[in-house]
Amino acid sequence: MGVVVQKYGGTSVADPERIRAVADRVVSTRKAGNDVVVIVSAMGGTTDDLLDLATKVAAHPEPRELDMLLTAGERISIALLCMAIIDLGFEAVSFTGSQAGIVTDTIHGKARILEVKGARIREAIRDQKISVVAGFQGVSTTADITTLGRGGSDTSAVAIAAAVGADVCEIYTDVDGVYTADPRRVPRARKLDAISYEEMLELSASGARVLQVRSVEYARNHGVPIHVRSSFTNEAGTWVTEETEQMEQAIISGVAHDATEAKMTIKAVPDRPGVASRIFTALAGEAINVDMIVQNVSSHGHTDVSFTLPRGDLVTAGEVIEALCAELDAAGFDVEDDIAKISLVGAGMKTHPGVAARMFAALAAAEVNIEMISTSTIRVSCVIKEADLDRALHAVHESFELDAPGSDV
Amino acid sequence: MGVVVQKYGGTSVADPERIRAVADRVVSTRKAGNDVVVIVSAMGGTTDDLLDLATKVAAHPEPRELDMLLTAGERISIALLCMAIIDLGFEAVSFTGSQAGIVTDTIHGKARILEVKGARIREAIRDQKISVVAGFQGVSTTADITTLGRGGSDTSAVAIAAAVGADVCEIYTDVDGVYTADPRRVPRARKLDAISYEEMLELSASGARVLQVRSVEYARNHGVPIHVRSSFTNEAGTWVTEETEQMEQAIISGVAHDATEAKMTIKAVPDRPGVASRIFTALAGEAINVDMIVQNVSSHGHTDVSFTLPRGDLVTAGEVIEALCAELDAAGFDVEDDIAKISLVGAGMKTHPGVAARMFAALAAAEVNIEMISTSTIRVSCVIKEADLDRALHAVHESFELDAPGSDV
Repeated sequence: MGVVVQKYGGTSVADPERIRAVADRVVSTRKAGNDVVVIVSAMGGTTDDLLDLATKVAAHPEPRELDMLLTAGERISIALLCMAIIDLGFEAVSFTGSQAGIVTDTIHGKARILEVKGARIREAIRDQKISVVAGFQGVSTTADITTLGRGGSDTSAVAIAAAVGADVCEIYTDVDGVYTADPRRVPRARKLDAISYEEMLELSASGARVLQVRSVEYARNHGVPIHVRSSFTNEAGTWVTEETEQMEQAIISGVAHDATEAKMTIKAVPDRPGVASRIFTALAGEAINVDMIVQNVSSHGHTDVSFTLPRGDLVTAGEVIEALCAELDAAGFDVEDDIAKISLVGAGMKTHPGVAARMFAALAAAEVNIEMISTSTIRVSCVIKEADLDRALHAVHESFELDAPGSDV
Repeated sequence: MGVVVQKYGGTSVADPERIRAVADRVVSTRKAGNDVVVIVSAMGGTTDDLLDLATKVAAHPEPRELDMLLTAGERISIALLCMAIIDLGFEAVSFTGSQAGIVTDTIHGKARILEVKGARIREAIRDQKISVVAGFQGVSTTADITTLGRGGSDTSAVAIAAAVGADVCEIYTDVDGVYTADPRRVPRARKLDAISYEEMLELSASGARVLQVRSVEYARNHGVPIHVRSSFTNEAGTWVTEETEQMEQAIISGVAHDATEAKMTIKAVPDRPGVASRIFTALAGEAINVDMIVQNVSSHGHTDVSFTLPRGDLVTAGEVIEALCAELDAAGFDVEDDIAKISLVGAGMKTHPGVAARMFAALAAAEVNIEMISTSTIRVSCVIKEADLDRALHAVHESFELDAPGSDV
């Protein structure tokens, strides 16, 4: 008995049969006495088909027009889902991002939500109608159609949940919750019943793909409880909420990994003020997202600077760094694209020293060499060789007994 | 050097290659010094694909949601065409019907345009940008997405041309103009250089498929010159404009046909006031578009009433008429679905008597039996057997020497 926001991803609405299954689920939530607002992504495959068309008409598809094109995808899925719900005898109405009042900035391809007006959704709730809203899209402050970037539908759902004061934002996906590690790599990984916003943020930022970072941030800032669950079962999934006392019993929530980055090392850089600034300002100028940065101790007035970055940015970064090496009189640079990052996340770290040491010991016992380390108050990340990743995940998962419910160090 | 509105149908933008060809044509019009506003339909085939999806998720797709679904089609084509134009180095911007300010009534599936605001198109013209606007669609007075019904993109184009004060509205299609008869049925049919709005209206209303009736009506009411031409050649096509002196030299513009209707005859209806009204009010109540109506002379207080209607409405009409026959104490009804209508159109009829007689003589000589006749000041229509259609078209076309330029009776 409340307002339930449900978000279904592209896999959940990939064909007419699955769309009808989602309609059934929406209707049963409605029958249970809830007001329901549904957010949908484009049918699985649609976005790729549209991108393919774009590359066939233009060498460099213009970003504004690419957003106009891609938003056709959710327009199709909201209309179809709405028809399917109406066909079951329930009142429903679809809204584009623009009609739902999702106002964004003007950065095409990865716009940020500035405001969710939501007047038509609230009106639909008052009229006892189910709303079906297009995820991933909005309308900019200059009245142009924008998209939120990969995974943006999660953020649409959370933002709409906040705007209508929903009791819960259910994110339906093809896994049944948040796990202590990726179950495809760590078969003993355990589903978590609950996790705090902070921990989920660190996991998402460290490579866990279950929720987009921005959606977790938005949920935390607006106090929206998220329930991550599977669209193929009726089991409870994982709740993402404020930190509770019960949660604090577990020191570690999980291990995340990311095997999409590469590492660059600039060798023998003169160790003087302003050098790091020049390197990373130059990279930021090319919109390259640098993740970890490590600078070795100086030797004879020179130092090595290493950093990680998305593999897709290696070519651009190589050009930037090559030019800088000459300017800075550095000895050159190395690239390693066979690395992976493993991150241990847990709110309990704040009060339990020794977690990092125990992680390093587990990696050492598994003969995994650590190339870089970075930490936050609730996370320890290590860069290792990609070939060592599965061994490292198992070792750390086992060392912290993450397969045991309510595990404690 | 003026404002040129160009409309391209689904065949002209059916695949990436044709979209690039349309982009070339748009750009060459721009290079010639014109401001260009382009209206596009959905890529050929898209609408059918979307309709197919709709029938797979719902037995009776809801009209509002069907409009939401189908308008994804033009969204895709405007974005792709815009990208292709930009890729050629020209500035272009796409607008949905809603963004272009095409305001309609609230009848989903066949909305009527109430107003074209066009502020963003005028702004684009000021900024020297090519606008690419979605045809067939608009936004209703209740802010819902609507479609204009089959062929609605022609009307979009004319309405936008009127709103921006265009010098010409070019309708690109797969034929190269308006012919004295359908060239697929009458090989000697001749392309017309010009035709008046009135004549074009009668031809369109009589089954000529080259322009939608509503678009011609709109053009006449707003004085928008239409140029119907082929997107595959650079030849001039047919101009549709106000009647000029030159046009008046030709008495007959062309012969149109329609083989999509059926004929119903209600037999032995009591001949008393109010009967016809009850019949056609009942049919109108089911939104059945009755075309021709003929009532025989009364005999013994009874009469036969015949009318034509779209074949697709036969089942519904049968139910209505069956109930009425009992109420009115009529003898029953017959259905003929093997009929066709042949119409002779020409502004010169107004001042040249004897045209109808000559048409009937031509049909008689070709041994074509006439089942029904109706006329306007510039049109004579006869209902005949569908099997006689080609013979009738040839006979009438030849009798009026329509294959000879500037033909006169």
